[in-house]
Amino acid sequence: MRIVEILLVEAPHKPGYMAKVLGVIGSFGATVEGLNAVRRLDKDTIWEVTVEYDDSLSIEDLFEQINQLPETCITGKSDRVFNRHKQGKIQTISRVTIDSLEILRDVYTPGVARVCQAIQQSPEKIKEFTNIQNTVAIVTNGTAILGLGDIGPEAGLPVMEGKAAILAEIVGLSGVPILLKEKDPLKIIEIVEAISPSFGAILLEDIKAPECFTIEEELIKRVNKPVFHDDQHGTAMVVLAALLSATKQSGVDLKEKVFGQIGLGAAGMGICNLLSEYGVKQVVGCDLNEDAQKKLRSLGGNPMSLDEVMATADVVVATTGVKGLIKPEMVREGQIIMALTNPDPEIEPSVALENGALFATCGKVVNNMLAFPGLFRGTLDAGVIEITHQMKIAVSETLSNLAREGALVPASLNKDAHDKVAKAVYNAAIKQKNEFL
Amino acid sequence: MRIVEILLVEAPHKPGYMAKVLGVIGSFGATVEGLNAVRRLDKDTIWEVTVEYDDSLSIEDLFEQINQLPETCITGKSDRVFNRHKQGKIQTISRVTIDSLEILRDVYTPGVARVCQAIQQSPEKIKEFTNIQNTVAIVTNGTAILGLGDIGPEAGLPVMEGKAAILAEIVGLSGVPILLKEKDPLKIIEIVEAISPSFGAILLEDIKAPECFTIEEELIKRVNKPVFHDDQHGTAMVVLAALLSATKQSGVDLKEKVFGQIGLGAAGMGICNLLSEYGVKQVVGCDLNEDAQKKLRSLGGNPMSLDEVMATADVVVATTGVKGLIKPEMVREGQIIMALTNPDPEIEPSVALENGALFATCGKVVNNMLAFPGLFRGTLDAGVIEITHQMKIAVSETLSNLAREGALVPASLNKDAHDKVAKAVYNAAIKQKNEFL
Repeated sequence: MRIVEILLVEAPHKPGYMAKVLGVIGSFGATVEGLNAVRRLDKDTIWEVTVEYDDSLSIEDLFEQINQLPETCITGKSDRVFNRHKQGKIQTISRVTIDSLEILRDVYTPGVARVCQAIQQSPEKIKEFTNIQNTVAIVTNGTAILGLGDIGPEAGLPVMEGKAAILAEIVGLSGVPILLKEKDPLKIIEIVEAISPSFGAILLEDIKAPECFTIEEELIKRVNKPVFHDDQHGTAMVVLAALLSATKQSGVDLKEKVFGQIGLGAAGMGICNLLSEYGVKQVVGCDLNEDAQKKLRSLGGNPMSLDEVMATADVVVATTGVKGLIKPEMVREGQIIMALTNPDPEIEPSVALENGALFATCGKVVNNMLAFPGLFRGTLDAGVIEITHQMKIAVSETLSNLAREGALVPASLNKDAHDKVAKAVYNAAIKQKNEFL
Repeated sequence: MRIVEILLVEAPHKPGYMAKVLGVIGSFGATVEGLNAVRRLDKDTIWEVTVEYDDSLSIEDLFEQINQLPETCITGKSDRVFNRHKQGKIQTISRVTIDSLEILRDVYTPGVARVCQAIQQSPEKIKEFTNIQNTVAIVTNGTAILGLGDIGPEAGLPVMEGKAAILAEIVGLSGVPILLKEKDPLKIIEIVEAISPSFGAILLEDIKAPECFTIEEELIKRVNKPVFHDDQHGTAMVVLAALLSATKQSGVDLKEKVFGQIGLGAAGMGICNLLSEYGVKQVVGCDLNEDAQKKLRSLGGNPMSLDEVMATADVVVATTGVKGLIKPEMVREGQIIMALTNPDPEIEPSVALENGALFATCGKVVNNMLAFPGLFRGTLDAGVIEITHQMKIAVSETLSNLAREGALVPASLNKDAHDKVAKAVYNAAIKQKNEFL
């Protein structure tokens, strides 16, 4: 894992001294991410050096090497990542400044009673007079946090706060982390159903497969609000976007090709599902787990072995977590390959291309963050109770259309892209709502 | 119920015209809360008139009367209370501005993984690197919202948002409304227990008696975090504060007197409980409900009839919701009486005083809001897992000490008072923690 740390280095204010420090850092195997002179002393300068290094290296060794340089020493260190997490990343604020009795009596008792009664009489008014239509529960039981596995709900809170911070910054939604001390899918369904009146929508997050499938399916049935498991569909939308760009650039019609998915966990199954719905006629996939194979069949796909998938599919996506799983000799001439496992893909894109692939890429371009903020903004604005395939495909098509020449998707922090995704989802939702009427 | 509305009145810019409008408003039975000239036209002026009136009156009748005045008419109206609730009163914000890839990679993937692992290894770090220690769940099932009864959790949301807005404004805590679609106390206990990892503390709110007693008791046992039902203890702390002030002003030692509680619902039982713990030796009370009588006995108090309570107690508090329940002839010479039902008390203070009471007051001074923000701030800062009687009594004593000459408690928006309450709770908590070690 890569660690970012900020070192305070005191060195003489003379030519060449910092070059030596940077040389030592480089020879240690770390990269310099930033360099600032923070204070000028009598003869020396204190520098803030931001370094990134792998956690297999011992930072203490680096300190020792720097301290051995002439007249140079480490005077302190801090950790930028931890600094940015101090006291958490989110906060609830009041939208009303409560600084007079008049305001207090309006927003709390006795005034609030009239608003309560108005909602009691016309339940729809909850959307007008509370924040509910901007509120998304971010629910996890901590069983599949990032690539870290079952580390428990509490240890997953920084991820949930991260999602909430992104929702707030990118599309102005209020994310509420909900950590569940529960693993039984039926109980999770009951708990989330019971607390669902509190939120405008439910984002399920980092719950392990196969429980995540049942939980999502059943909650969609029971809760009259959008329910969405990001690990399944978030990745799928961005993968579809990237495949649309890749096939466009390669002059291939995605719908007419055989699609092969390697790894049928939450993300893999979501990808198969969305590609089928998009119109890809033949979906094949492989996974060692028999339940996963059964599930693929129930979605209309064909389970196969890894070799068969590689031999059959024109377009291949891999989400297995297994570095180097795809051997160079398995690559077919003209294949399009996305090997998404991070940081080490199932096959390096360069190796795939050398072995005849038409197009190859790895997981760095596929960032869930491109999809879920706009998806929720659009869904909540449209006031629909379900997130449909049409809405998901609208996300992918919008992202693909917004990708710049040579890129597969837009940059994750491109606010305009998020706005356009939200608008596309809104339009797709309203269109379906009208067709349904 | 009192309604606040803002009328737009167009009237000639000549002396005496607005006086007539105000005269009509007065004769209609409404009070004027504000008057602003918002626009000057050629010969006329448009005024914004804020009126407060009882909902038994028809505002349309008032409009008609104003429209009949010479050259004067109503051109519009709006409702200040509803305006202040538009789109809700709270919002989740990001504490980090996410405007570069570096920041995104630090607060979300890949950086966040290290913070997750740090919490997994040292669970206490969750307090340092997330917002959890500033987070309070505000949990209701909507069965006893204000004085409105069982109007359902959704209709209660404006109250929960109001509490969250107060927590944010007064003590910087993040309140999270949790609305439960559930009435069975055992299921509520299970649900709240299951979601409890998400929060630093649990504030139970507007859940009806007697279920509220079981729910609170059991959650305190099961959840390793502060759990607190405001309807029971919030009112109790402010009542004790007011009684401390009243007895001090009357030269009476509260502990030596017989205390009588009329009405043994959530608030009444909480008051009996806190007064016993404070040191009042004899507590009597009345309620028609037999379970309530039994509960009082289990707390060490004596159930009696209303007449007996009035004949026995030196200090009486009434929380029954029944206007005029205490007849003038029941008042004993030298009695201290707080009749708290709003807006019409069990006995008017003036009537109680005329009939020999030493001191009498009504519910306008007892505002829960004086207690819960500082209580939670102090508890969370101290990092204790239980809210004890000592901490509650510290709240009451602090509030009583801060009351100005002639008043029973400080003003609800007195920020200094809230800070001092938080500090007193913190000190009481730390003292107990140290005694326990």
